[in-house]
Amino acid sequence: MDNLALCEANNVPLTPITFLKRASECYPNRTSIIYEETHFTWPETYDRCCRLAASLLSLKIAKNDVVSVLAPNIPAMYEMHFAVPMAGAVLNPINTRLDAKSIAAILGHAQPKILFIDRNFEPLLREILHLLPYDDSLNLIIIFIQDESTNFTKRGSTKELDYEDLIRRGKTTSSLVARMFRIQNEHDPISLNYTSGTTADPKGVVVSHRGAYLSSLSAIMGWGMGTCPVYLWTLPMFHCNGWTLTWAVAARGGTNVCIRHVTAPKIFKNIALHRVTHMCCVPTVFNILLQGKPLDLSKRSGPVQVLTGGSSPPGALVTKVQRLGFQVMHAYGLTEATGPALFCEWQEEWNRLPEHQMMKLKGRQGVSILSLAEVDVKNTKTQESVPRDGKTMGEIVIKGSSVMKGYLKNPKATFEAFKHGWLNTGDMGVIHSDGHIEIKDRSKDIIISGGENISSVEVENVLYKHHKILEAAVVAMPHPVWGETPCAFVVLEKGETNQGYREDKLVTKERDLIEYCRENLPRFMCPRKVMFMEELPKNGNGKILKPKLRDMAKSLVVDDVSSKKIQQHEEEFNGDCLTSRL
Amino acid sequence: MDNLALCEANNVPLTPITFLKRASECYPNRTSIIYEETHFTWPETYDRCCRLAASLLSLKIAKNDVVSVLAPNIPAMYEMHFAVPMAGAVLNPINTRLDAKSIAAILGHAQPKILFIDRNFEPLLREILHLLPYDDSLNLIIIFIQDESTNFTKRGSTKELDYEDLIRRGKTTSSLVARMFRIQNEHDPISLNYTSGTTADPKGVVVSHRGAYLSSLSAIMGWGMGTCPVYLWTLPMFHCNGWTLTWAVAARGGTNVCIRHVTAPKIFKNIALHRVTHMCCVPTVFNILLQGKPLDLSKRSGPVQVLTGGSSPPGALVTKVQRLGFQVMHAYGLTEATGPALFCEWQEEWNRLPEHQMMKLKGRQGVSILSLAEVDVKNTKTQESVPRDGKTMGEIVIKGSSVMKGYLKNPKATFEAFKHGWLNTGDMGVIHSDGHIEIKDRSKDIIISGGENISSVEVENVLYKHHKILEAAVVAMPHPVWGETPCAFVVLEKGETNQGYREDKLVTKERDLIEYCRENLPRFMCPRKVMFMEELPKNGNGKILKPKLRDMAKSLVVDDVSSKKIQQHEEEFNGDCLTSRL
Repeated sequence: MDNLALCEANNVPLTPITFLKRASECYPNRTSIIYEETHFTWPETYDRCCRLAASLLSLKIAKNDVVSVLAPNIPAMYEMHFAVPMAGAVLNPINTRLDAKSIAAILGHAQPKILFIDRNFEPLLREILHLLPYDDSLNLIIIFIQDESTNFTKRGSTKELDYEDLIRRGKTTSSLVARMFRIQNEHDPISLNYTSGTTADPKGVVVSHRGAYLSSLSAIMGWGMGTCPVYLWTLPMFHCNGWTLTWAVAARGGTNVCIRHVTAPKIFKNIALHRVTHMCCVPTVFNILLQGKPLDLSKRSGPVQVLTGGSSPPGALVTKVQRLGFQVMHAYGLTEATGPALFCEWQEEWNRLPEHQMMKLKGRQGVSILSLAEVDVKNTKTQESVPRDGKTMGEIVIKGSSVMKGYLKNPKATFEAFKHGWLNTGDMGVIHSDGHIEIKDRSKDIIISGGENISSVEVENVLYKHHKILEAAVVAMPHPVWGETPCAFVVLEKGETNQGYREDKLVTKERDLIEYCRENLPRFMCPRKVMFMEELPKNGNGKILKPKLRDMAKSLVVDDVSSKKIQQHEEEFNGDCLTSRL
Repeated sequence: MDNLALCEANNVPLTPITFLKRASECYPNRTSIIYEETHFTWPETYDRCCRLAASLLSLKIAKNDVVSVLAPNIPAMYEMHFAVPMAGAVLNPINTRLDAKSIAAILGHAQPKILFIDRNFEPLLREILHLLPYDDSLNLIIIFIQDESTNFTKRGSTKELDYEDLIRRGKTTSSLVARMFRIQNEHDPISLNYTSGTTADPKGVVVSHRGAYLSSLSAIMGWGMGTCPVYLWTLPMFHCNGWTLTWAVAARGGTNVCIRHVTAPKIFKNIALHRVTHMCCVPTVFNILLQGKPLDLSKRSGPVQVLTGGSSPPGALVTKVQRLGFQVMHAYGLTEATGPALFCEWQEEWNRLPEHQMMKLKGRQGVSILSLAEVDVKNTKTQESVPRDGKTMGEIVIKGSSVMKGYLKNPKATFEAFKHGWLNTGDMGVIHSDGHIEIKDRSKDIIISGGENISSVEVENVLYKHHKILEAAVVAMPHPVWGETPCAFVVLEKGETNQGYREDKLVTKERDLIEYCRENLPRFMCPRKVMFMEELPKNGNGKILKPKLRDMAKSLVVDDVSSKKIQQHEEEFNGDCLTSRL
């Protein structure tokens, strides 16, 4: 039975770059990319990628060399997701919101042979090169991407390498192109993505061709993205390869609508002009969407499908965004999982629930994608699966072929990540009886008060429901009795008249908000301190920097402590615990 | 870059059996199987499969042993698609429409350790065992599947093994179950499917876990099958594992509605009762659907999605079926490709075309699935790709990880199938400028008349459009001048009054039909003989047996041959050729 040898016809390594070739053959008349006045078809994008890859090869790029890129969501950024691996190299898309120091640290660690850089980042580049060791900066080939649509005057010297020149001069032959699509081993790396997590030192996640292929297909199925979507690039492509949508849109023969700046006018103009059907964004972008007018659904076949992740989307915010003509789906992922790992797959029967319950279900992280072999929630001490009761917390762990290969040059972090034979996400959650996973917190964001775990996310969810609150983050602050207690940082809604708010009605008193929390949470979970902020500190991806807030909270004092109050607290606490266990 | 070792967390062999475990965890409350009064949930199906696999292991089933099954679309048949490979064995589902001799030949070739057989096939079994060599029949473990819903009295002796007993007695432990889902190598065989093609000797196609996994996902995406479909089993599961839908329905957390007999009342009753959303069938089943009344769409969220294949669906038939509330999609596949290889992906702009053009586009075979690396149409002599002009014919060839491992114990046939590094399908087709492939004929069904290729399918399509024709098949008959000429075998529509036909208006004259063809085809392509049949000869899968028709056609004589007419033919022929080349 088992003596059948594998051959060329039935054993082709899995790689998402085949999606490009397929798109050029199966969707020859369809638009691949739209960016301002630029329009390409799939055969054109295919041709440009082949030429770029040929040029990279002629620049002596060898297998597994790293090629870094620093650019916004412009066509070049999309093309490189195919052309760089087609040349056998590894794409390293860098977060453009990082400062020169962080980028220099990444380049120093990744040791790329080439850096592609958008011309608009030239001042940043000078800073970066200044910070790099002399040898590194000397050996690094810089290639500028000149974006014709910006008013930036081309200042390049004749010696400078230019992206479009590379494409123009790329010499392709049919045998060379055939070689580009015939990768040797599907476990070979395709990209190197530095995590933009809230941790101190960034780690370089190595993604394989196999992982990227499987993750792309899982994203298509998890989101239910049909053929020929029109996809608007609001999510940065540097962010985990745009959650693998870079490759997935090609797989579906879709159209990539690129925008340089994520602003409300740009988003709404492009949605209307190109009949956008799909987009991804973190919940913080929802606030940008709310600046626009409702979509004219009479001119569309349906709402714009929005995939969101990064953090749980607050139900109230989702409701508002959906009223504008967007249909929100929530996914959970991490760079180490090569994009989304869980999708909150909608169940038809949920449509019959009241809206607030629907929103609550929508905010859960959901069920495993099809390319993972297993997803579980485990007790971090015993490594046993938690019961599926929606209450018992544990760490979310995953296993499967779409998980990263590991961290570049970091065996210690790789070992830690893969301890016990799983990818340990560091996220604490529960499994509900319907199989859906819900994150309660990052393990390090859990607040431990009197030995009880408090999920900061749960407290934040309650705060977000308050109609005057725009953003909220809850962290631990020291407490003389309970060790830790929740401290809330909130940004209030602007008193904009079009939202129906009035300045004089704004909640401005700490006590009022704490009182509101007490009405909606067990007492021990309520913040004992509320700080009002103009804005919350965020990283380059718009993720709230909780370590910074924790630092701030450390110096705060709970002012209600006296021996009498301690006793009172104890009573409250015990009562609450009982309540929360019922 | 490349020194990251693979580990348990990121390198899990691909297999569709993980879909079962995932379904039990992600869709715990959903119905997995409905069959008459029987209802199972996904955790129940998971549990039953684990128990059955445990029983198989206790019967000393070893890795790569073959387990054959002869059963209609009942729950046991579905469960075995998971339980048999979970025990490390290879599932061999046998076409129940074959005669004892053919089945005995398959068993003799496949050498299974176990044969599961539906109790209703007991008389057939006796015949089969009689035909098997004594040693084979002695060593074969027979396990009866007792179907409670049939009136068949249980006649088993106490010594007989019974399917439900196996499930009842299966002893599972968590470590045993963990082992069942941890396959060693994704290239290991999962199933052995004998082709039911029209060729003389059946070949055993060996399908790998990897191929089955990828094909299932491709079927989901190609068809656009969302989560939680309600799938009606009209297509036999023994037919290429139900085009991989056996596994794909589990991947989507769907409900399998099983029926033993494919009749109009059964189909329509189950569609209404269980709100069926999806089904697959060959175009010949459309004639069964036409016996039913239109679906009540007011009670449904939309039409029933029908995936069809096996042969191109005649446009007129599709139109009729769609009017009843079905939405037809066409796919092309073969057992050697582990199911569908091309899907006729609908393009939104086609919706604006007139119906007959839409139907024509719908009848094309379509574009490559995502798990194939390449699909091409090649000149059989030069092995060069044909131009994408919709005219130049060549052989359809495919390449990718979902292609079969090869034919069991048949190195010669395996070598032939994989010649030139591709799976050679033996189907002749063209590529249109929009990337869609259209089959013109099986290479052996091509009629060569005066050196010109005539696609029998093209002639058949014209015949099918005639409103009085129910079924048509065109084959070559000898011709003294042209070598071959088309001969049509047709079945006329019944003169049923509810179809609006009258007996006296039936086309009964050969000449009328030939005249009709001349109005719609180049003359050299028109049949010169029409045979009227009560029914067309078909194989177990409802596929028309063209070799049989060719045999019949051999003895027929074209009666219009005289020296004068030959001259006339020549003129016609040349004129036609010019026309067809324009």
